[in-house]
Amino acid sequence: MLHKVFKTSTLALICTTALSGAVAVTAQAAEAETERHKVEVTTVTEGLNFPWGLAFLPNGDALVTEKSGNLRRVGTDGVISDPILGVPDVVYKSQGGLLDVALDPDFEENEWVYLSYSEADPDGGPGNSTAVVRGKLVGNNLQEVEVIFRGMPKYESGAHFGSRLVFSPEGHLFVTLGDRYSAMDDAQTLDNHHGKVVRIWPDGSVPEDNPFVSQDGALPEIWSYGHRNVQGAAIHPQTGDLWTVEHGPKGGDEVNIPIAGGNYGWPIATYGVDYDGSIISDQTHVEGTLQPHYYWVPSIATSNAIFYTGSEFPEWQGDFLVAALKASQVARLDLEGERVMHEETLFKDVVDQRIRDIEQGPDGAIYLVTDDRNGKLIRITNADD
Amino acid sequence: MLHKVFKTSTLALICTTALSGAVAVTAQAAEAETERHKVEVTTVTEGLNFPWGLAFLPNGDALVTEKSGNLRRVGTDGVISDPILGVPDVVYKSQGGLLDVALDPDFEENEWVYLSYSEADPDGGPGNSTAVVRGKLVGNNLQEVEVIFRGMPKYESGAHFGSRLVFSPEGHLFVTLGDRYSAMDDAQTLDNHHGKVVRIWPDGSVPEDNPFVSQDGALPEIWSYGHRNVQGAAIHPQTGDLWTVEHGPKGGDEVNIPIAGGNYGWPIATYGVDYDGSIISDQTHVEGTLQPHYYWVPSIATSNAIFYTGSEFPEWQGDFLVAALKASQVARLDLEGERVMHEETLFKDVVDQRIRDIEQGPDGAIYLVTDDRNGKLIRITNADD
Repeated sequence: MLHKVFKTSTLALICTTALSGAVAVTAQAAEAETERHKVEVTTVTEGLNFPWGLAFLPNGDALVTEKSGNLRRVGTDGVISDPILGVPDVVYKSQGGLLDVALDPDFEENEWVYLSYSEADPDGGPGNSTAVVRGKLVGNNLQEVEVIFRGMPKYESGAHFGSRLVFSPEGHLFVTLGDRYSAMDDAQTLDNHHGKVVRIWPDGSVPEDNPFVSQDGALPEIWSYGHRNVQGAAIHPQTGDLWTVEHGPKGGDEVNIPIAGGNYGWPIATYGVDYDGSIISDQTHVEGTLQPHYYWVPSIATSNAIFYTGSEFPEWQGDFLVAALKASQVARLDLEGERVMHEETLFKDVVDQRIRDIEQGPDGAIYLVTDDRNGKLIRITNADD
Repeated sequence: MLHKVFKTSTLALICTTALSGAVAVTAQAAEAETERHKVEVTTVTEGLNFPWGLAFLPNGDALVTEKSGNLRRVGTDGVISDPILGVPDVVYKSQGGLLDVALDPDFEENEWVYLSYSEADPDGGPGNSTAVVRGKLVGNNLQEVEVIFRGMPKYESGAHFGSRLVFSPEGHLFVTLGDRYSAMDDAQTLDNHHGKVVRIWPDGSVPEDNPFVSQDGALPEIWSYGHRNVQGAAIHPQTGDLWTVEHGPKGGDEVNIPIAGGNYGWPIATYGVDYDGSIISDQTHVEGTLQPHYYWVPSIATSNAIFYTGSEFPEWQGDFLVAALKASQVARLDLEGERVMHEETLFKDVVDQRIRDIEQGPDGAIYLVTDDRNGKLIRITNADD
């Protein structure tokens, strides 16, 4: 096994060396001013095929999913590995494919890596749904791969898979889901996983204190409901609470702090209208549903979000950084505790592609991947005088 | 007395009728879309000379101060009265002049009207300061006029008078003040009124539970300190708390919820830089100072603010509407309780002058006055289909 890994790495290195012109291109950097820090924006690498999820290994290498179905390792030098073997088959269609990647909190001991993806119906039907597998990353192989979550029902749609994976401080795995667009009304009922956030243990078992475990007809994995398409999730570093970012209709992207059993209103209450201009609901407040913590009108087309905790950008510590597709920006929500006291638009003029994921690296830098056939991994560092 | 009032009103009516061309101009209206309401924006009248403060009488007439020193009444038909007699002399210079106007909460019983203004040194020195008088409005006269507050020290400056007047639910009068620009460091010491919010009783006496009444060397009127130029103030309709809006340096306009004895940081902590680009402080967090509730970078140049509570705009009920000079806009902060969950920019394309004051009329409409030699009184009403 180890032998094979070394071979792959060596091959990648040879390929990169041969393409030294391309490597020179990927080292481009630009400086930009922000309100509190000057930043350097460096393209670590490009040539990623619609990257979706990003996670850092302890040695600083990045794991990157490509929506088409590959999981790759990117070295700090920007060298992209061959696909890691053992990744499940995915339904690569519209918004579906290989989606998020997350490391187990005890990865250094147990080597578990978690992947979310759109999974075909194992019975051969036309539907699909978001599923989650885990496997042990040994060299360039995923081993002992097992499905730990399978969204139900399988449904024929290429849209709204949600799919972000984050671990709570107690070790639960939150999986964020989408309403599959044409099944939006399902977000209000508890007999399905559409438009839900679910909470499971890393082996797929259900925590016995989940809010609906004792409710007849409700799926026990459900943590919160009434969501549209939750593509962003992060754990607040002080409170330990889950914060989610929900890609809304035209207008109405939301930040929520989902509580156990909470109903976040979609589609009966929303601040947005649908993309065709039709009104989904003219209600922003509906009894029994919870208000967002923060929202955007018009939509910036949110993807993932992080709480920044590094030393690279002292003035951004504790802030919530929300990446966006449409506006190629990161919205910095300056937080005082949980309260948003200011929003700043970052990187808009220096990132020219839709931003699909944002993560903080082990070095405290901020990393982005962009939603493009020739997608980039971008590193943001401090360039203060 | 009544005879004289009738004469004045009749005169004004005659003048207006004679200028019927001008009246036609002032009746112009425009429609605009916002996120939640369609609005009609009507110029009720123009020809106000740098109007600063606006307050509504029980019959729907508006009292409007002009910075040059006149207090006028504007009828619902847009007719502007002659100056009301009995208004104190003001130092009309740069930002100074006749500033805010407020009615006593028991106005219908006691007829007290309160005016803030920049007052010359009574001893003939070169300085000036913000002062407050009250007088009983009888017809077109202010009677029994008495100074109830006099900022100290008198200081030679044409800038940063603060001056907004609001009553607490318990009947205190809050007077917001400015740092006089070149005396900004005074905002951190308690032996002066520069950069303070003060709390007095309507007769000018000091509430015995004010935070610094027992502190040697501190002025007993002080409620909070470390402010720059507080030109906006309103009472939260549910909590009864004072909210203030502070015109910051370039970047750094703030909303605060001043607590008794609170230090809001200016000039040792700020999110802004000075207008010449120099850094006043690179600190946003300084021990012992309080963070803003919300802030703007870049500055929108805030003036006054209201909590909207009317039935004219149901979707805006409970929201905090902050008027701005530079951007000719009203920033709607969509509140959930005290928390800002969204900001919308209103009226930017339909108001072409700097907005100096905003008030809710007895009819639930929103009224603005604009900072111009030919200043307008503008009415915003609901034009939803």
